[in-house]
Amino acid sequence: MSAEIICVGTELLLGDILNSNSQFISQQLAYLGIPHYYQTVVGDNPERIKQAIKTATSRSEILIFTGGLGPTLDDLTCETIADFFGVPLVEKTEIIEDITKKFAQRGRVMSPSNRKQALIPQGAEILPNSTGTAPGIIWQPHPGLTILTFPGVPKEMQQMWLDTAVPFLKSQGWGQEVIYSQSLKFWGVSESALAEKVSSYLNLQNPTVAPYADKGGVRLRISAKAPDLNKAEELITPVAEQLRQIAGLDYYGSDNDTLASVVGQLLQKSATNLSVAESCSGGSLGKLITEIPGSSNYFWGGIIAYDNSVKVKCLGVNNDDLINLGAVSAKVAEQMAIGVKTSLQTTWGLSITGIAGPGGETETKPVGLVYIGLAGPENEVKSYECLFGNQRTRSLLQQLSASTALDKLRRSLLEKI
Amino acid sequence: MSAEIICVGTELLLGDILNSNSQFISQQLAYLGIPHYYQTVVGDNPERIKQAIKTATSRSEILIFTGGLGPTLDDLTCETIADFFGVPLVEKTEIIEDITKKFAQRGRVMSPSNRKQALIPQGAEILPNSTGTAPGIIWQPHPGLTILTFPGVPKEMQQMWLDTAVPFLKSQGWGQEVIYSQSLKFWGVSESALAEKVSSYLNLQNPTVAPYADKGGVRLRISAKAPDLNKAEELITPVAEQLRQIAGLDYYGSDNDTLASVVGQLLQKSATNLSVAESCSGGSLGKLITEIPGSSNYFWGGIIAYDNSVKVKCLGVNNDDLINLGAVSAKVAEQMAIGVKTSLQTTWGLSITGIAGPGGETETKPVGLVYIGLAGPENEVKSYECLFGNQRTRSLLQQLSASTALDKLRRSLLEKI
Repeated sequence: MSAEIICVGTELLLGDILNSNSQFISQQLAYLGIPHYYQTVVGDNPERIKQAIKTATSRSEILIFTGGLGPTLDDLTCETIADFFGVPLVEKTEIIEDITKKFAQRGRVMSPSNRKQALIPQGAEILPNSTGTAPGIIWQPHPGLTILTFPGVPKEMQQMWLDTAVPFLKSQGWGQEVIYSQSLKFWGVSESALAEKVSSYLNLQNPTVAPYADKGGVRLRISAKAPDLNKAEELITPVAEQLRQIAGLDYYGSDNDTLASVVGQLLQKSATNLSVAESCSGGSLGKLITEIPGSSNYFWGGIIAYDNSVKVKCLGVNNDDLINLGAVSAKVAEQMAIGVKTSLQTTWGLSITGIAGPGGETETKPVGLVYIGLAGPENEVKSYECLFGNQRTRSLLQQLSASTALDKLRRSLLEKI
Repeated sequence: MSAEIICVGTELLLGDILNSNSQFISQQLAYLGIPHYYQTVVGDNPERIKQAIKTATSRSEILIFTGGLGPTLDDLTCETIADFFGVPLVEKTEIIEDITKKFAQRGRVMSPSNRKQALIPQGAEILPNSTGTAPGIIWQPHPGLTILTFPGVPKEMQQMWLDTAVPFLKSQGWGQEVIYSQSLKFWGVSESALAEKVSSYLNLQNPTVAPYADKGGVRLRISAKAPDLNKAEELITPVAEQLRQIAGLDYYGSDNDTLASVVGQLLQKSATNLSVAESCSGGSLGKLITEIPGSSNYFWGGIIAYDNSVKVKCLGVNNDDLINLGAVSAKVAEQMAIGVKTSLQTTWGLSITGIAGPGGETETKPVGLVYIGLAGPENEVKSYECLFGNQRTRSLLQQLSASTALDKLRRSLLEKI
């Protein structure tokens, strides 16, 4: 028994809109434990919609449609489904009444074209739309096949799903088993290296473990199928614990954790605070830190020292070192870190200087070369050389620099606590 | 003749990620004038991938795959395609060399599991991946059927599409009739207000004009269908010109222009330079500015004055004003702007102070209240009060503050030039 999503709309085939409906329904099906192996997108064309229905009915028992329920001529989903199963459409007076009432609430009169939305296949139930005018249907055209239709507008579709489809699917025995996932997040290790380290876990059946590359980091998703959330967590917890042990310090958090939120927690735990000095990252590090609510508790601020004059004036970087070693050097990174820590009077000072490209590389310093400086509580200073490669975009190099700087601070904080 | 998109990945079926790849490819197919009637999503399962191929080959002549090209065991796209057509995989030494080189550039050694990425079906051509390790293929397993594969990582896929797939498809005779679009971008006007101003243009047939809300701004997309790019541009240019005139100063740029790139051009044109002082935006403004290559020509740097002590110490903000008026006030915004301009010795000083939430609001100052300060060439100072509303996320409020600050500077620069 499995479900299949069929999204109807030429605007999807033209790339005018992003298909967020299929993501929402996918998450909901996973949560209810309903297996789901295929999704199809098809345009507003009756013959092709019928072909999609034919393929889908050959392999799935629940068909979930979105889109094509509107009042205009190119909205064909409902009549095409009825036609495919050879069933006439009937007009539902309760739909007409509902649409008339909604128009009246907005001080308008129902357009004649909206009458079309009151036609549903004979034998189908109305799937009410509390916010918009387009209702859906719940229909079993024959035993063992269930059809649900939703409008394409995401907010309407989601409300209808939660209000009516979920209780209906639960009444059919679904949701007795849930699929629950937890993500473990890692930094400073490649996807392939981590996958090799944990290779024996990648063949597990319940929970399953799957690796994903994740914006410069790596994620391991652990998914369990169980009668309820608690049982799923019982399956996941020991595996998560083992994976964390194998990964060691490369593991930084789970699910909604970010490097910035984890660093924030560690700073608060150690009652220390932070300032930053940014050259090539230009504010990206400050942005990541201050995206976390409550970051004012531990983040004092920073200096964006983009021009060398600012490095000298606001951070006390030695002008001779700038000339002799260059702004992109370990020593300048260290001076920037100690400079901002001193100037803003914080426990930690974290700095970034590098070549974000395009251009700016020299014979010895390629695009993607970044130095991170870290000054600590006792004014001890360290620096780290990173080679992010010259094939990445400027914006990605800035983000990688900022994330890696946070990761270096995280590791130092863990040593101190 | 039509193309079909097949996205492979269990993470899509679980709703872990949004399928942005199919939107990108859809737009590109529309641009090339290649008909496209179906999209399929299928998990990392060889039997189901084969079923999707079977269905797709029965109705489409170009199959475009994304996902499942990685180095791990659940990446099965390439070998499953080969298996479906009964063709062996062969190892390509040039792929091994390319991957080894990319690892070396990042100071790493290639993992043994990456060898898998060098296997492609006998007879297929390599579709090179300039940024990542997973190459794709271009393959005609039999006359009248073309297969293209791409990795799932959007940035890699897009680059490969533009670099190799587009020239290949054009060499096959596609792109004879193009659909070409130009986007005009606006800030400081709502989508509905702009749509009303230009309402008579929204019914045009060729080019068409469609409004979109765009991260706090608005976009008008003008699309023309024509035998070639020049002819399409001839249709678009006069309409674009009229729309720009109607919108006046709310129009800021086209297509890949951003507020930051436009401000950068205006600063260079006026031979002036800029520094920033950021409180609630925490680095977001610096980040937007420095994402533009060459921004070091006009951007000196900034102070992230998150804590009030930094506002006093590094920006010379009056402590009494902080106590009596609060950090979120017009006067403090003005002092921050003049403070950073003076300290970093730039022509312009731009500042942001506000309440990004959640929490932090007072009886008179709601979440979403932001003051922008702007100090100009003659040390004249202005400030702007913005109410972005308390329903938006912290991160969106930070981004809106930074973009609006750039827009205020843009309007002032236009007055001077």
